Amino acid sequence: MTAAAHSRNILHLPIGFSFSALAAGIKASGRLDLALVEAAPGTTAAALFTRNLVVAAPVDVGRVHLSKAKGRIRAVIVNSGNANCATGKAGLKACQQVCQQVARTLGIRSEEVFPSSTGIIGVPLPTEKIVAKLAELIESCEPTPAALDRFTQAIMTTDTCQKSASARFGAGTSEISLLGVAKGAGMIHPQLATMLVYLFTDVSATPDELKRLLSDACDQSFNCISVDGDTSTNDTVLLLASAQSGIQLKDSGVRKKFAKTLSDVCRSLAQQVVSDGEGVQHVVHLFVEQAKGREEALQVARAIAHSLLVKTAWAGADPNWGRILAAVGRSGIALDPNRVNIYIGKQIVCKGGVGCKFDETKAHLDLAHSNCDIRVRLGRGQSSVEFVTTDLTAEYVRINADYST
Amino acid sequence: MTAAAHSRNILHLPIGFSFSALAAGIKASGRLDLALVEAAPGTTAAALFTRNLVVAAPVDVGRVHLSKAKGRIRAVIVNSGNANCATGKAGLKACQQVCQQVARTLGIRSEEVFPSSTGIIGVPLPTEKIVAKLAELIESCEPTPAALDRFTQAIMTTDTCQKSASARFGAGTSEISLLGVAKGAGMIHPQLATMLVYLFTDVSATPDELKRLLSDACDQSFNCISVDGDTSTNDTVLLLASAQSGIQLKDSGVRKKFAKTLSDVCRSLAQQVVSDGEGVQHVVHLFVEQAKGREEALQVARAIAHSLLVKTAWAGADPNWGRILAAVGRSGIALDPNRVNIYIGKQIVCKGGVGCKFDETKAHLDLAHSNCDIRVRLGRGQSSVEFVTTDLTAEYVRINADYST
Repeated sequence: MTAAAHSRNILHLPIGFSFSALAAGIKASGRLDLALVEAAPGTTAAALFTRNLVVAAPVDVGRVHLSKAKGRIRAVIVNSGNANCATGKAGLKACQQVCQQVARTLGIRSEEVFPSSTGIIGVPLPTEKIVAKLAELIESCEPTPAALDRFTQAIMTTDTCQKSASARFGAGTSEISLLGVAKGAGMIHPQLATMLVYLFTDVSATPDELKRLLSDACDQSFNCISVDGDTSTNDTVLLLASAQSGIQLKDSGVRKKFAKTLSDVCRSLAQQVVSDGEGVQHVVHLFVEQAKGREEALQVARAIAHSLLVKTAWAGADPNWGRILAAVGRSGIALDPNRVNIYIGKQIVCKGGVGCKFDETKAHLDLAHSNCDIRVRLGRGQSSVEFVTTDLTAEYVRINADYST
Repeated sequence: MTAAAHSRNILHLPIGFSFSALAAGIKASGRLDLALVEAAPGTTAAALFTRNLVVAAPVDVGRVHLSKAKGRIRAVIVNSGNANCATGKAGLKACQQVCQQVARTLGIRSEEVFPSSTGIIGVPLPTEKIVAKLAELIESCEPTPAALDRFTQAIMTTDTCQKSASARFGAGTSEISLLGVAKGAGMIHPQLATMLVYLFTDVSATPDELKRLLSDACDQSFNCISVDGDTSTNDTVLLLASAQSGIQLKDSGVRKKFAKTLSDVCRSLAQQVVSDGEGVQHVVHLFVEQAKGREEALQVARAIAHSLLVKTAWAGADPNWGRILAAVGRSGIALDPNRVNIYIGKQIVCKGGVGCKFDETKAHLDLAHSNCDIRVRLGRGQSSVEFVTTDLTAEYVRINADYST
């Protein structure tokens, strides 16, 4: 399954979810900036949040609501254009007020509402603008692809394209659908990213089961990507299960298929996020192999993926393997440099820590593709990881130097 | 004392050192690329090296020579244009061969020669070009400012200006001089940088005394700077003491004055290196205060100084304190965000983790200066650090995307 297949082609809409979005005037551009999901009664949920200790108000509130509601969520309210972060007690109140108003209008409990915000940090949330539009937002909720499309647009910030992926698989006489949408283009780093990800399915599962599956899927996807090494204050991945397919996760053969499908959808979304990274010209699939363990492989992958010298060399499609080797050398693992092999595309360029003759033109062309593979073998063990990252271009700098002023 | 005062005005040349440099054809540009220091008999030495596990041949050889010669060094041979790194056993042999040839010509032991290389990684050292020029190099050695000037030029790579600092202080009826020269403009990171630093003094001191003083001075200077967070494979700081002033370090009152002077010279050189950072528009003096210890303060300073989002905001002179707060939040210390205050210039912009009203135009103007101050108070303790770092500009990306191809 490819990202393109999912973002451009048919989306499998799970039963039990309605969507809506509108422009509430939070974004100065007048674009869609307020979005809602309504979930069927009985919907269970699990979420993962940023590991940054500075967290936005909706992350705090979302965590509390999930716990109070014992993993039962009936609505998701998202705004873009304002992160509601570093806004103090007023920010928490603003978030709670929005949730209360959604709950009142829908006739549910406040803790059954899950909030998210994304956008600029440190500016008070314009609560009145949001509250004024809630009735209209709720009224226009529909379980249609068109409504989902508007929802996906409304959660975008610096994203240049919508990100979604879905899959469907048979179970007994019925079918289970899984659909995910995401936003994120910068501040993308392992341990989640400035990313909001919403995953919807119609399987029946307990919150605990969902949590376990979600953790595993994130480890294989959102925790293996990096654009700029920054960790956002608002990162959230939410998985909702409506139970409307009538099939239970614990039914024979379902769990394994579901786990695989969830992981595939998450990996597709993660790759879409990286591909849309700010100013990205090249997506680099970095394979770190022969590590002593998965953590060690990740540690080396991150050191390479966060090296400005490596990332700028990639921007120039420059097969400068010396910078990669130097990044491995400072990654903090007990390395023997004489065992390191580095490949660009299919060519070996560094063998036993020493440069070897290779076709530079071919390596340059390999790196000039929009997607390219770099392989680093450490000669220490049998663990490996595939890490998806990007080059660092002058365009990234321009985008991020001009953000708020 | 300021960098300008030292780099542009009188340099105090310590007694006992001669310098020379020439173009050996290692750099394609035909610029000076081979340099020599001759030190008087009895000169003692101490050195610090990169902590990268991938190290260049001259770092390995330099370490062995210092140890074999029991801290007695009579000559320093440096080439630019080639790092002699990731060159395997052939690279080690090449380095040893150069040292042997220098030793033979000077009539000293091979281990009394200290080698350095800086430039591109993974390309064999053109030993013949170097060896062919050694007699001429040694013959032209002079204890003059003009010769020192050529030495300082010859060790440069992407540097746009020479870097030197010196000081002199009285001790009894005599005087002690201290002079330092440096190269470095990118790959600049705590734990030394792609930096070669040579410090010369005419005090009399044992290698052990020098080592202790050098460690302390580096902790306060070269280990508190960062341009791009990359650690080089060749970093070396070498301190040579010729004893020619006739004054001993252990003489009354000398050690304290010397330690202070060494630290001042190192700090001046460190700031010159940062100011010459590739593509740098703004040098940022980052004060992290109220930390539980110096290590904690450094950890936070590094998280801020390495955040691409923070560095690009600085490039745009953008008072985006939210990105600074987010970097503090992910620095890994047990932070209470509600106690964090952030200042830009003299203005407080974030109080107790929450944005406060401030004059944005003034903050923007403060950040637009070539030097600006950012202060982060953690509210956890009494330790602080001053860390010198830079913005990240599109120019940095251009310089580093076009390096080798």
